[in-house]
Amino acid sequence: MARTINFNPGPATLPLPALERAQRELLDIEGSGMSIIEHSHRGKIFEAIHNEALELTRELLAVPKGYSVLFLQGGASQQFAVVPMNLLKPGQSADFLVTGVWAKSALKEAKIVGTARAAATTEVDGKFVRVPKQSELELDPNAAYVHITTNNTIFGTQWHTLPDVGRVPLIADMSSDIMWRPLDVAKFGLIYAGAQKNLGPSGLVVVIVKDELVDAGRSDIPTIFQYRTHRDTNSLYHTPPTFSIYLYRNVLLEMKRAGGLGAVEKLNRAKAELLYQAIDARPDLYRAPVEKASRSTMNIVFNLPTEELEKEFLKSAEQAGMVGLKGHRSVGGVRVSIYNAAPIAWVESLVAFMAEFKRTT
Amino acid sequence: MARTINFNPGPATLPLPALERAQRELLDIEGSGMSIIEHSHRGKIFEAIHNEALELTRELLAVPKGYSVLFLQGGASQQFAVVPMNLLKPGQSADFLVTGVWAKSALKEAKIVGTARAAATTEVDGKFVRVPKQSELELDPNAAYVHITTNNTIFGTQWHTLPDVGRVPLIADMSSDIMWRPLDVAKFGLIYAGAQKNLGPSGLVVVIVKDELVDAGRSDIPTIFQYRTHRDTNSLYHTPPTFSIYLYRNVLLEMKRAGGLGAVEKLNRAKAELLYQAIDARPDLYRAPVEKASRSTMNIVFNLPTEELEKEFLKSAEQAGMVGLKGHRSVGGVRVSIYNAAPIAWVESLVAFMAEFKRTT
Repeated sequence: MARTINFNPGPATLPLPALERAQRELLDIEGSGMSIIEHSHRGKIFEAIHNEALELTRELLAVPKGYSVLFLQGGASQQFAVVPMNLLKPGQSADFLVTGVWAKSALKEAKIVGTARAAATTEVDGKFVRVPKQSELELDPNAAYVHITTNNTIFGTQWHTLPDVGRVPLIADMSSDIMWRPLDVAKFGLIYAGAQKNLGPSGLVVVIVKDELVDAGRSDIPTIFQYRTHRDTNSLYHTPPTFSIYLYRNVLLEMKRAGGLGAVEKLNRAKAELLYQAIDARPDLYRAPVEKASRSTMNIVFNLPTEELEKEFLKSAEQAGMVGLKGHRSVGGVRVSIYNAAPIAWVESLVAFMAEFKRTT
Repeated sequence: MARTINFNPGPATLPLPALERAQRELLDIEGSGMSIIEHSHRGKIFEAIHNEALELTRELLAVPKGYSVLFLQGGASQQFAVVPMNLLKPGQSADFLVTGVWAKSALKEAKIVGTARAAATTEVDGKFVRVPKQSELELDPNAAYVHITTNNTIFGTQWHTLPDVGRVPLIADMSSDIMWRPLDVAKFGLIYAGAQKNLGPSGLVVVIVKDELVDAGRSDIPTIFQYRTHRDTNSLYHTPPTFSIYLYRNVLLEMKRAGGLGAVEKLNRAKAELLYQAIDARPDLYRAPVEKASRSTMNIVFNLPTEELEKEFLKSAEQAGMVGLKGHRSVGGVRVSIYNAAPIAWVESLVAFMAEFKRTT
């Protein structure tokens, strides 16, 4: 089977062995005569997978004691609302560091739930080409929390150094860069991530949260939205998205086999470096709009001199077997999403293509 | 491959051809060189499946004009909160017909959101053996809506005739019996159902809602929870659970091939009749606690004279290759879940087993 070179921004490519295992087991898992999809979420076979998935999350990210891992539904977009519902109390305000479309959406939902403000924004003419410097942050020392988006999928920027937010809990939407490298979880109050980029299929949200915050969360909101409900039931309060958790488990096993997040980081850095070198090597043709210090290792965006050339680039790339390169509809251009599962060979193919594109001599 | 006879209450057995197709296509759908799980939710291949799934829902249920079909996440349990968040305004009250555990949970969440009351309950000593009669309903003519649970998975009761609620919108949790037969959707204001019983995998909720209610819904709640958000974006406001929608599509295609919901109903009635006959045929050994008029066609519950005999029954059945028969932990006994995808041959096997169990002559 020929694998298409898939640079989709999410849902995105997954490790082939994780998918092959799913295919092999799809009609009959562990000799049970049933698909994992047909197993009860309260049965032994699913529960073991569920617990293995929770445990692998803790292991790969070295989640410290005092933090819980939750499997939820509704995507990161739902967390935009659920975080303030739990953690933003009447009389409190939350700070948002606005670095892109998703950060703005998170702020918008928080403002519906309670009081929230932008403590920084790098928006200029509707675009974002960098994350803010520490000196630009106008932080409220009494804020309920500070919210950041660690990687901005659409604009291709990423926080390489976390902002210093003092004693205020740091809440991070890491949907597009969770597990791209080892992480010091202790620096965060809460991390959330839709699985469909680095971790697995869509339909699953992973939350890592400090138990103190769970315990202090509001208890007058619907039960289903309280983090404590899911923390206290091992994420089995209601029927979980069983197949998504199963496939997430398969993906995490591949990361572990690859050597853990240290090895994953090395590969990711090498892939991104190759691409930025290819862009910078032909300044006549390719231009990365993002400031160097803010360049994302997950989503590399660049432009060509004209929209016509961009269209031609995308078309030729597709003919060469590379898909998912079109920039987000709000910004255009080219976007190369190289999440954990994208092999370096794919990046090498693209880089070779970029070196030759419109080469006349 | 030997298929286990699977009477799981949900997640539950699925039509084998729907799973076989998923297995066949799992690494490469439509020659794209990618799994459906790796396709963008904004790409042509997924969008066609998404639209086909929406269209099949409308077709099988003959959804009338003026109603929208939505694909959401978070299970029916999340709808327990989201329905009142949208439809229960300050100063209004909602009526609940309490017929089981899930109906109670729905009422509990609604009370957190606004004002809600039980307009009827058939609970006696913590158990429910029937749905209420029309004469027992103490309906508030000014209620924002009346909420029912059409099939009670745990207690094995089902509404065979809908309650007359006058001009008040009827909201139904149909998680465990949607599409078990043709439905007059026009009688409802809103229907919701977790997919993991009759329709497909867990992780997908199908909502069918009158546009009038969507339009009149609250607009001061988080965007992600407003029905209009999803109605106005063809359920693509954010990344949907793509594989769950794909598999749901496969399952609905099988229902259509089987002759539509009229044919599905015939089979379901035949299966349930076989089982109730088997129970009633040996009153010394089996006792169905549910009143005849309220007996469910989806979840058939019964008891044996002692807990020991029940344990022996479950153990022997499992040895005979039949799983998922244990009653819910809150009620014990035996529960046979025979959703759409359970073949009548499985029911015949169980009925034969029941006829012979503890037969001494």
